[in-house]
Amino acid sequence: MPELRKDPVMRRWVIISAERGKRPADYSVCIPSKKGGFCAFCGGNEHTTPSEIIAFRPDGSKPNTPGWTLRIVPNKFPALWIEGGLNKVGEGIYDKMGGIGAHEVIIENPDHNLTLSTMPLKAVEDTLWAYHYRISDLKKDPRFKYVLVFKNEGEAAGASLEHTHSQLISLPIVPMRVKEELDNAQHYYNYKERCIFCDIIYQERGNALRVISENESFISLAPFAPRSPFETWILPKTHESNFAPDGKFSMLAEILQRTLKQIDKVLNLPPYNFMIHTSPFNNEINDYYHWHIEILPKLTKVAGFEWGSGIYINPTPPEEAAKFMREAEI
Amino acid sequence: MPELRKDPVMRRWVIISAERGKRPADYSVCIPSKKGGFCAFCGGNEHTTPSEIIAFRPDGSKPNTPGWTLRIVPNKFPALWIEGGLNKVGEGIYDKMGGIGAHEVIIENPDHNLTLSTMPLKAVEDTLWAYHYRISDLKKDPRFKYVLVFKNEGEAAGASLEHTHSQLISLPIVPMRVKEELDNAQHYYNYKERCIFCDIIYQERGNALRVISENESFISLAPFAPRSPFETWILPKTHESNFAPDGKFSMLAEILQRTLKQIDKVLNLPPYNFMIHTSPFNNEINDYYHWHIEILPKLTKVAGFEWGSGIYINPTPPEEAAKFMREAEI
Repeated sequence: MPELRKDPVMRRWVIISAERGKRPADYSVCIPSKKGGFCAFCGGNEHTTPSEIIAFRPDGSKPNTPGWTLRIVPNKFPALWIEGGLNKVGEGIYDKMGGIGAHEVIIENPDHNLTLSTMPLKAVEDTLWAYHYRISDLKKDPRFKYVLVFKNEGEAAGASLEHTHSQLISLPIVPMRVKEELDNAQHYYNYKERCIFCDIIYQERGNALRVISENESFISLAPFAPRSPFETWILPKTHESNFAPDGKFSMLAEILQRTLKQIDKVLNLPPYNFMIHTSPFNNEINDYYHWHIEILPKLTKVAGFEWGSGIYINPTPPEEAAKFMREAEI
Repeated sequence: MPELRKDPVMRRWVIISAERGKRPADYSVCIPSKKGGFCAFCGGNEHTTPSEIIAFRPDGSKPNTPGWTLRIVPNKFPALWIEGGLNKVGEGIYDKMGGIGAHEVIIENPDHNLTLSTMPLKAVEDTLWAYHYRISDLKKDPRFKYVLVFKNEGEAAGASLEHTHSQLISLPIVPMRVKEELDNAQHYYNYKERCIFCDIIYQERGNALRVISENESFISLAPFAPRSPFETWILPKTHESNFAPDGKFSMLAEILQRTLKQIDKVLNLPPYNFMIHTSPFNNEINDYYHWHIEILPKLTKVAGFEWGSGIYINPTPPEEAAKFMREAEI
């Protein structure tokens, strides 16, 4: 019989449909091999992107020239604009404001053929450091309340360019999904005086059914009620409310790359999304929220039932997904 | 500049990106023409589906034989199972229950090549009546709190069979998306003593910017903060908390078919989802919730930003979408 499971943080039910019992090979979603051709993100084509915000490049080399190892540029087609005021106004019963925000692209590597799974570990570490650097910088702008860092890998996961890259969008609001997690985590804390994520980690380490891997500082696991088959979370093992892994970037890079390698191996290079959830600027240090990375392989469709209910149907139980991930030879 | 707009019912922000200013032809998402071949939903193949629950068929004709005009069968691969108990249990900090529910398929027409846009209006009316009939029947089962009726048209919108059909899933919980709407509508009512949907209709009829069409009983409109380009809602013009359009099925069929024809015309037969949102069984008649149909053409991708934030980026302002819809020659 299928099972209805509730995520304790998001208070969202999912249907775990073990009978459908889909195994990795049942998801045929391999990212098509790269087409190549002209690419604005490749080394040598720096002049075709907006001017860089920051780059890791040899001492003395000029901005927007080759030689960099990581480069951050404004998105050429930004979802939000960096210039302008908030102009919050009502329109009868409706509310609106100016679409103010930064929309930046983190080009993780100049090589068109690498991904976060295959690039040198140091490049992954630099990428994570760059996320943190940009968040710290954008935090200074009083118009912004939050920065969402995310990655779309593969066209089916929404990537419009095949050269690997991450994105961030700073926002003048705390996004709804984060606010829900914050509110629910705070409610739990008020009741239990414990962080709900710390409790999840404690329980998961107790039976190890859904734990995928650990290193000194981080744990990766399949959540109890995953929206997507092979959904994976990476969390710091001790309480940290905001994404500021000083002194731990190499540990985080290690577990992130290992997890992505496992996903690539088990699911044969699937498209995926990941996003970092952290506490908002106005409340970065708190006892109840615990920053984490959510990785969602793009294996199922969002259709009428999901849109209408908010309930996701997951044909691979997380216990099985975690086992496949643990046993992947990477 | 883009605009951030908040849906007053769902309290969800969207980014309206007028600069991207996508027009209908920019969304190239036409449903591939039907492949044909063997189809379990076609007239004559009744023996290949699970035994019918109800069918509209000539007096004297036997169940599961040809001659029907509309047929409802259990889903052969149900997301939830009809037999069994709820067995609600905790597992440490987690909650789960048996995946109990009905999952039924409404085959709206025996003709493989028709859709809700192209079938006779009477067949659309019968479909709506069938939805209501099944909801009324499933309501009698005390295990269920809600029935979600939805439709996936086109493979990209999640339809696994190309023969037009709707589905319904009865649930032992009120789904999260509906609960959010209910809670927010109740909160608004407590404050204003008015239904928020009635207020929306009043405001929209006042300026007509986002109104698409009306008949005696129903209105179709582009919501102020649509998740998807060309998202369209159909609502009863006067307050009705639950889907029970007695005496108005023909009016509802008329505006639903007209709206789908407009969508087909403007967007060249796009994949789409629709779902009916209504009050849950334990509170069907109330002053604050207003049932409605939400139609979401499948034109954009849900990617990392949307997963992580709950904010959707919509490159076609609803005022423009409504104008295209109104001007469509159908």
